[in-house]
Amino acid sequence: MSSRKIVIVGAGNVAFHLTRALLENTLNVVQIFNRTLEKAQDLANNYNIKYTDKISEIEKADIYIICTSDKAIPEISYYIPFEDCLVVHTSGATPITALKGKYRKGVFYPLQTFSKNKNIKYDEIPFLVEAENINDQNELISLGKRISEEVYVMPYEKRLPVHMSAVWASNFTNHLYYIAGEICKKQGIPFNILVPLIKETVDKIQNNMSPFEAQTGPAKRQDEEIINKHLQILESDPNSTRYQIYKLITESIIKTYHD
Amino acid sequence: MSSRKIVIVGAGNVAFHLTRALLENTLNVVQIFNRTLEKAQDLANNYNIKYTDKISEIEKADIYIICTSDKAIPEISYYIPFEDCLVVHTSGATPITALKGKYRKGVFYPLQTFSKNKNIKYDEIPFLVEAENINDQNELISLGKRISEEVYVMPYEKRLPVHMSAVWASNFTNHLYYIAGEICKKQGIPFNILVPLIKETVDKIQNNMSPFEAQTGPAKRQDEEIINKHLQILESDPNSTRYQIYKLITESIIKTYHD
Repeated sequence: MSSRKIVIVGAGNVAFHLTRALLENTLNVVQIFNRTLEKAQDLANNYNIKYTDKISEIEKADIYIICTSDKAIPEISYYIPFEDCLVVHTSGATPITALKGKYRKGVFYPLQTFSKNKNIKYDEIPFLVEAENINDQNELISLGKRISEEVYVMPYEKRLPVHMSAVWASNFTNHLYYIAGEICKKQGIPFNILVPLIKETVDKIQNNMSPFEAQTGPAKRQDEEIINKHLQILESDPNSTRYQIYKLITESIIKTYHD
Repeated sequence: MSSRKIVIVGAGNVAFHLTRALLENTLNVVQIFNRTLEKAQDLANNYNIKYTDKISEIEKADIYIICTSDKAIPEISYYIPFEDCLVVHTSGATPITALKGKYRKGVFYPLQTFSKNKNIKYDEIPFLVEAENINDQNELISLGKRISEEVYVMPYEKRLPVHMSAVWASNFTNHLYYIAGEICKKQGIPFNILVPLIKETVDKIQNNMSPFEAQTGPAKRQDEEIINKHLQILESDPNSTRYQIYKLITESIIKTYHD
């Protein structure tokens, strides 16, 4: 596995972290290919590896890992000129068929949220892998296992809903933190006042409490009086989406515990 | 402060943790009063303190901390027969005037989510306090500081919106974990696959990234194709609230980054 040559395609957050995760586990990343040269250079220079923005300069390798936006996968995958190689994308929401080329194809999806300049424990990332044949599937399992304990073989039909669940569990909850922070800000209270609460909410479900058991609050108790007080505050908010979101999540919690 | 006698009114999750937090910091909890005797007994026996369900047996104390549901505060506070004492409730969403009696009044609101059988770092809990006079306010600040670093004087007009922000940051996010878990369950995938992602989402904002900076995902990128794939999955879900919630939160994220 360590001898396999790997080329990273893309230079965004996923490329940044995946390159680091691979190199930290002594895997052989030989080149970064990205259509904006500066970004490829930024990433490659961290590790003294080669980089290019020219299709004609893409190195021959064993595995190409496409870390671009989902939309760019068909076009960029089409540029990889080799056939005797495995090309994978890293998207949770994209079928294997988005890869356009004569090479062998697969998916290597890390179920994680990546921000630059934020360290992550790579060995906890679940990798969801898929390939067209069993050899490549085993290859991707081995690759995942070099980084993390958690590697799952998962076809698109399952990966897409799991990807959506990740949107709920991460993107949406983060946006609710943002809204909570905006509500505090309006009162001159810093967001930090909420951090111990947020930590504890997550700490519960890390400690083998299910979200169902861990639920607290006025909606769970069906405390209409408090719910209405909150809705009154939101009613006067010009951002009426928040009023609607409050109502619907509250309704959903009440349905979960009182139906 | 340590010599002050404290009576806890109520025996639910808040009473359980506040009693423990007070005793661990060598404060003098003398009695648990609760209308269901068994629950008072359960709590009191952990610490070998007195308990009662009879109004006539409520001990004379310096501070009474009412930890009941918000709805029960007016009635139960009315039963406290003493005048030369400070009675506080622990509700974020209830004004001080909900306390019905001739004693001095205050609020001692711990901004945290409490589940029984789940240890909490009490020294990180923000306490939001309020009192009718400056002496009692100082008394409550001292009491809070015995447990935690974070004590804020905050009147009802600010406490209520901050309480609401806590509902967004904790109750609502926990419910989104529940929904995410249900989506995975439908695919035969255990909720645990999401835990590293959830941890990392919170780890970002604990590490001085604002939720605004930490946001990732299809809504932030305004990736309509993925959003529509997700909505298609939810459309066929008989629980149509989820479809609506997905749409509204996505709309709210897009508005935040693309308006």
